[in-house]
Amino acid sequence: MAALRINAERLNATLQSTCTSWGALAAPSTGMCRLTLSPEDKKTRDWLVQECESLGCEVKVDQMGNIFAIRPGTAKDRKPIAMGSHMDTQPAGGRYDGILGVQAALEVLRTLHENNMPTNCPIGLIDWTNEEGARFPGAMMASGVWSTKSSTRLEACWATQDQEGLLMKQALKEIGYFGSVLCDYRENGLECHFELHIEQGPFLERANKTVGVVTSVQGMKWFAVRVTGVEGHSGTTPMPDRSDALVTASRLITAVRDTARQTELGVATVGVINSDTSSQATIPAGVDFIIDIRCPTDDMVDQLATAVFKAFDSVVQEEGNGTAYEIKRTWGLPESKFHTRCIDAVRASALKEVSEDQIMDMKSRAGHDSAWTSRVCPTSMIFVPSKDGISHNPNEYTSPEHCALGAQILLHAVLEYDGKVQKGEY
Amino acid sequence: MAALRINAERLNATLQSTCTSWGALAAPSTGMCRLTLSPEDKKTRDWLVQECESLGCEVKVDQMGNIFAIRPGTAKDRKPIAMGSHMDTQPAGGRYDGILGVQAALEVLRTLHENNMPTNCPIGLIDWTNEEGARFPGAMMASGVWSTKSSTRLEACWATQDQEGLLMKQALKEIGYFGSVLCDYRENGLECHFELHIEQGPFLERANKTVGVVTSVQGMKWFAVRVTGVEGHSGTTPMPDRSDALVTASRLITAVRDTARQTELGVATVGVINSDTSSQATIPAGVDFIIDIRCPTDDMVDQLATAVFKAFDSVVQEEGNGTAYEIKRTWGLPESKFHTRCIDAVRASALKEVSEDQIMDMKSRAGHDSAWTSRVCPTSMIFVPSKDGISHNPNEYTSPEHCALGAQILLHAVLEYDGKVQKGEY
Repeated sequence: MAALRINAERLNATLQSTCTSWGALAAPSTGMCRLTLSPEDKKTRDWLVQECESLGCEVKVDQMGNIFAIRPGTAKDRKPIAMGSHMDTQPAGGRYDGILGVQAALEVLRTLHENNMPTNCPIGLIDWTNEEGARFPGAMMASGVWSTKSSTRLEACWATQDQEGLLMKQALKEIGYFGSVLCDYRENGLECHFELHIEQGPFLERANKTVGVVTSVQGMKWFAVRVTGVEGHSGTTPMPDRSDALVTASRLITAVRDTARQTELGVATVGVINSDTSSQATIPAGVDFIIDIRCPTDDMVDQLATAVFKAFDSVVQEEGNGTAYEIKRTWGLPESKFHTRCIDAVRASALKEVSEDQIMDMKSRAGHDSAWTSRVCPTSMIFVPSKDGISHNPNEYTSPEHCALGAQILLHAVLEYDGKVQKGEY
Repeated sequence: MAALRINAERLNATLQSTCTSWGALAAPSTGMCRLTLSPEDKKTRDWLVQECESLGCEVKVDQMGNIFAIRPGTAKDRKPIAMGSHMDTQPAGGRYDGILGVQAALEVLRTLHENNMPTNCPIGLIDWTNEEGARFPGAMMASGVWSTKSSTRLEACWATQDQEGLLMKQALKEIGYFGSVLCDYRENGLECHFELHIEQGPFLERANKTVGVVTSVQGMKWFAVRVTGVEGHSGTTPMPDRSDALVTASRLITAVRDTARQTELGVATVGVINSDTSSQATIPAGVDFIIDIRCPTDDMVDQLATAVFKAFDSVVQEEGNGTAYEIKRTWGLPESKFHTRCIDAVRASALKEVSEDQIMDMKSRAGHDSAWTSRVCPTSMIFVPSKDGISHNPNEYTSPEHCALGAQILLHAVLEYDGKVQKGEY
């Protein structure tokens, strides 16, 4: 078993060729636009299902379009040891975020299959639907529903709409992935969940390490802010008379950044902004933007949010022109602590491949489907380095060597866990 | 002739009923959304044409959809004394901006007609197309083409698109106002141009005056700004590593406002902003916004623009994170000086109605079709007060008394000018 090795060349060739085929941005970019449930996503899914079936897996699709490909084990009454991630991308994302995790899982299944390797537990590959939340709002949506721990339930997810007003339920039906399996871990459970993912940050690279053993996912909250003022004519409204929603919003956005820097509690970002007016000659009456706050602990998230809103109050008071703001909490993911059993399996597997000084325990700064699975089954993640820490960007890059290293560690983490089950330890 | 009086009740009833019929926002708002060349605009135009024809006017439509309704005069070889404005509105505008000017012109024609009043020159009503530039970008578009002095020529205007991608030329054809008359003052000229308009600012009201004699329109320039940074993941990119285009844009927008306030050269506004990302979890790589600068003179516009861009350089240097900006000059209207003949006619007419202390000479802070006509024929404007200086807003309001006063002054300004022609002075 120690000698079992994934095929690095096959893994990377498959990853690159499927990215080139389905959702690639125009060359010379190596970026991806494979929005969830799009025609490109459908083609990728169809291919994945076919590949898994050719390896002897049983494929199930649940009510949220999550794909579960299960390679049978020898034990009776054991749930699958799963390797999950996602195949959807941001509108201008890269080839590795999520995709590597599913491709590596497929490579593990191929390796087990070609070696006729029996396992005690069934071994599962999962493609989680809509991890990005880029087309249908709500990141990590379908793993959240499956865990039953997300505040956004099945019916609410089905009712989300893309920018063209298409319901997610309809989109699932249109591409043929509106499955009949209940999207609920109590009906379709897992023994545990492993996820290989690119780090998406610069910390492994900066520390000159190659493997992150992920022990938790930081807490995060999103807040929708609406700033209001008084609409007016850009030519005729004297400067001192203005109640300009966009100037106030601009100062608030600057305050978000400044507060995150000063407190050093975590990160805070505004990416989306919309002005009420599309006329250059109008002082806007309202501006909407969304704040994304992430910190190592839930307490720190709340502290940073409190500090940001205190700064907002100062800005509005200074402006003193009738502009005001309202805040709506829109989404959150509490800090997720991963499990000793899975963390230990990842670390033991990593030590088979690299020396201890190449390995680093890490918190994930990004949200992942594993954050939801960790609430209902033992979970851990493996991180491999991202070049320059860049992600959600066409220039996202992880070397073929690091992709292969991650897949190899994923294989042996699964076998390590399965071995413990076989020995009756778990 | 001194006794000739417009019918205040008819003017206001017609103005209110046509606004209620075509383009009214949902009650209780008294706001308007009558975008240029929309179905509502078509109905308003059709009605206007019918009314003018019933008063014995000849109606011509030019290549930009401008409507010229001409009541014949007694002199041969004299061009029309025109009363022009516009019937289109902002997406959330009011019932007076532009609309009052055309309705008052109609009331003048009705008054002349019912009194069988002969004039030396023909008297014209003009409904200029797309003054607002709210649907097809480019304010005062069709009067600019007619004057031949705008940098945006006929073919370029036809090629502008609305948000649905419909070409303006096609929109003109679809509502039946793609006319055959050349849109060129040399082919379809005017003796002079008068325009009654609401002030859209607070200065008449604050000075407790009722009539503005408009002597010029301030200069204005628009600049499109693109701010660039580096796209990144909102969770994994450490604060010190960020090159955040939206934070830099926010600081620049604040700098626009602060510079206008500090220099006191004029007004500067940002109303439109767009972020490259629609994902809350992405640090945007780029942000676009538009600056609108207006000052009493062209020199002051350039001084204010220079001061704004100097402030931009300081912001970008302070940020020191690789964010950068580019500026494109998109549109401008040089300062427009109105003509003694028309200014005198307006002042003389105003003095027939109100005492001298009710009258104020003013610069227009908003652009108007009269800014373009002034480049090729004698022009002036009459301003009446705007409640609280509010415009481009559903709460825009001018009292029925002030509307009637403006229309009465418009009538006698036209007759005053016509009298000078009759006497051979002009």
